[in-house]
Amino acid sequence: MTKVMERSVVKQLKHIFEPKSVAVIGASGDLGKFGGRAFFLPLETGYRGRLYPVNPTRSEVFGVKTYPSVLDIPDDIELAIIAVPAPMVLNTMEECIKKGVKGVVMISAGFAEIGEEGKKLQDQVVKIAHDAGIRMVGPNSNGIYSSRVRLNLLYYRSPRLGSISFISQSGTLGGYLFEWANSKGYGFSKFVSSGNQASLNVSDYLEYLGQDPDTSVIVLYIESVQEGHRFVEIARSVVKKKPVIAFKGGRTAVGSRATLSHTASLAGSDEIFDAACRQAGVIRCYEVTHPFDLAEALAQQPLPKGKRVTIVGSGGQCVATADACASLGLELPEFDADTKRRLMELLPPHAPVPTNPVDTAAGGDPMTGPLIVDLLAQLDYIDGIITHGPMIGWGITPERITSLLTESEMVTSIPEKYGKPVVCTAAARRQGRGDVGYDLYRHARIPMYTTPEESARAMWGLMEYAEIRRKMDQS
Amino acid sequence: MTKVMERSVVKQLKHIFEPKSVAVIGASGDLGKFGGRAFFLPLETGYRGRLYPVNPTRSEVFGVKTYPSVLDIPDDIELAIIAVPAPMVLNTMEECIKKGVKGVVMISAGFAEIGEEGKKLQDQVVKIAHDAGIRMVGPNSNGIYSSRVRLNLLYYRSPRLGSISFISQSGTLGGYLFEWANSKGYGFSKFVSSGNQASLNVSDYLEYLGQDPDTSVIVLYIESVQEGHRFVEIARSVVKKKPVIAFKGGRTAVGSRATLSHTASLAGSDEIFDAACRQAGVIRCYEVTHPFDLAEALAQQPLPKGKRVTIVGSGGQCVATADACASLGLELPEFDADTKRRLMELLPPHAPVPTNPVDTAAGGDPMTGPLIVDLLAQLDYIDGIITHGPMIGWGITPERITSLLTESEMVTSIPEKYGKPVVCTAAARRQGRGDVGYDLYRHARIPMYTTPEESARAMWGLMEYAEIRRKMDQS
Repeated sequence: MTKVMERSVVKQLKHIFEPKSVAVIGASGDLGKFGGRAFFLPLETGYRGRLYPVNPTRSEVFGVKTYPSVLDIPDDIELAIIAVPAPMVLNTMEECIKKGVKGVVMISAGFAEIGEEGKKLQDQVVKIAHDAGIRMVGPNSNGIYSSRVRLNLLYYRSPRLGSISFISQSGTLGGYLFEWANSKGYGFSKFVSSGNQASLNVSDYLEYLGQDPDTSVIVLYIESVQEGHRFVEIARSVVKKKPVIAFKGGRTAVGSRATLSHTASLAGSDEIFDAACRQAGVIRCYEVTHPFDLAEALAQQPLPKGKRVTIVGSGGQCVATADACASLGLELPEFDADTKRRLMELLPPHAPVPTNPVDTAAGGDPMTGPLIVDLLAQLDYIDGIITHGPMIGWGITPERITSLLTESEMVTSIPEKYGKPVVCTAAARRQGRGDVGYDLYRHARIPMYTTPEESARAMWGLMEYAEIRRKMDQS
Repeated sequence: MTKVMERSVVKQLKHIFEPKSVAVIGASGDLGKFGGRAFFLPLETGYRGRLYPVNPTRSEVFGVKTYPSVLDIPDDIELAIIAVPAPMVLNTMEECIKKGVKGVVMISAGFAEIGEEGKKLQDQVVKIAHDAGIRMVGPNSNGIYSSRVRLNLLYYRSPRLGSISFISQSGTLGGYLFEWANSKGYGFSKFVSSGNQASLNVSDYLEYLGQDPDTSVIVLYIESVQEGHRFVEIARSVVKKKPVIAFKGGRTAVGSRATLSHTASLAGSDEIFDAACRQAGVIRCYEVTHPFDLAEALAQQPLPKGKRVTIVGSGGQCVATADACASLGLELPEFDADTKRRLMELLPPHAPVPTNPVDTAAGGDPMTGPLIVDLLAQLDYIDGIITHGPMIGWGITPERITSLLTESEMVTSIPEKYGKPVVCTAAARRQGRGDVGYDLYRHARIPMYTTPEESARAMWGLMEYAEIRRKMDQS
């Protein structure tokens, strides 16, 4: 047992995700290089600790005085971010140990991913770290993000704050998806590009994020799982507290072949991974962006009591959403006679006889939408609601809304009032149209998706996780 | 046989999609109403014919003099757009016939979709039209769009020009998808919200679009098919010339229940529809937006000779794209020894041993990407290429590119040079970053998608349609 194993992973990862001081070793002024971004981005995002650039060949980067070595910094350094060429890593690591750093993010590449020689160097680096009792992200990591201390080492310059955390075994795709999810409006707590996972692997990050109060949902991009049993054990204990959603790269033969060259790891059997997910209660997705759509709903909405859903909107959206829900195993209960009668009173005269999904028909009073949703949310056989648009007429003024409805009558109050989740399908961009309905939804954190299938999947994610939790509580 | 049946559908639909003069009956100044939009939108989009508003209660709308009746217009009227309340429709229709209009778009609702009484009224309206030998879109249509004459009756105010045509049995969802596809940058030739299909149905529109020189791909949103045999016959003859891609609403029991109330039509058996698609060579999709992603590739790229694909990009993107391709039945052939050797010369030293997909690894010479793609495009066992990003370094100047590569060496020249399709996965928005690579792709009409799965599906669509055509040519 090396010295590192005596210390708790959680405590060690706190040094990495919540450092009070950071040295960027290999900091440069070139934003085309990791060393440039790794210093510039934390500076720009407003890292809340003390940040020092280390570079023996330059006196300053981005206007900040550099130090020739980490040993020259007149301050304690909690986290070292290393972005120097591979041949310089051993020496840099030894200096970090001498300095007493508590954690390392190793951006440098040229280790196990390039073959046997690189693997040897990687083993030496890990031994130095572990002998000194510290842990390391990477090597070959694209960096980390932590909202708590505003530490951002990624391409994306202003990550949106939120409670989704994302562990990615792929650096470039991970960063790409982080940016994609940000552009959708989803907010993040932590991100880690785990690289070659020489010192810390997915299970370690899961353990840390499981207890992290800033994280409410965890997304994984995984190519292979080290220590399978430990993964299942840790994931299962995390899932009891918060949802874990995984996409696995390398599920086909050619995809698996590609992972070998990518992260120096042959993807394990897909059946084994699938069984592990089922055992641990990890929700699995099959397109790279789907976990984030699910995560947004899980981060914002209450958990439903069952899998019974109602859909309120216009005809074709109702049809496509109903198909998608049914395909995912969700139920659309038919309404009782009394509910049908009350719906007919609310719907415009030309609307079809109400059924589930409810076609609100065009041209009705724009204010009846909220009343319909409120009526349906009260039904004890409805567990969640998907609306099409914000159920408020286009371009209506806030004054007209508040003159017609109290706050508690609006759709946005449903999740809190009834403890039932609401998600919405809405066109991506309604800006500049003065649409107060969308603003209200956004403010109330009702997740908005652009297609019926995305909304259905998000509702499925909520219902699936709720079921996983119910089963776990029973066992 | 009514008089209408004697005339060719194609000729009659030309009056509707390429009219020289249009009367909007029920034109109003209220953009919240169909009658307002149906006059304002063609005005704003620059309809290339003569446009007349009809409204007996107003002297002008949007600054244009109105006529009390279509009979008062001192000009021939080729197309009448009718957006008056249902009780006024019979009289309006009779006036249109008297005026000698050649086609009608019936926006008005309150017909078969509201029950037996509405159905009777609908039958009367259709009889008047057909007895006079003319055809009608709708009733209960949300309108049409025709790029040829810039006639736009939809919500979306400035449709992007292109060669995709879209027939939608759902008005609201159809308009929504039309807007969604426009926001993705896909361009349209024609759109029709077919409404209750009392006079013209999907088969009629297909027949017209099949011979329309402005249309290169046809997308269908279908809930039910009338005249199944005719649909298969027409679709099959159209597919010999251009691809037809369909999404069907109501494929599940609850979805089917929803179609009944939506378009007054019970969705047919999903198995029968599926068999019809296979017989006709119609490509079927299972999410509402997927047909448009496929259509964009089919509209812009050459047809591949087989289903063998190569992927060039960064690690995780390669893995996820390879998985998606393999899941769709595409092949990723391994490279021959000579190609591997030549790839190793092009790739940076730290890149993994080249395989298919090709992981270009970060940090290499940004100009080697195009050379790699060109090398692979020449292989006789590769039929199509998926790249990650535009294969040109970020923020590089046009001058530097042209100093290093001739135009015919760029990835954008591959489709024309080798007759092989290229599609690309790229972050949605790179604007303001001065990224000339993306600009070149956009200019060259290389389809860009935001996820590995979208790119894989687009390539699948190209390969699937090419196979359908090969089989048709053989039979």
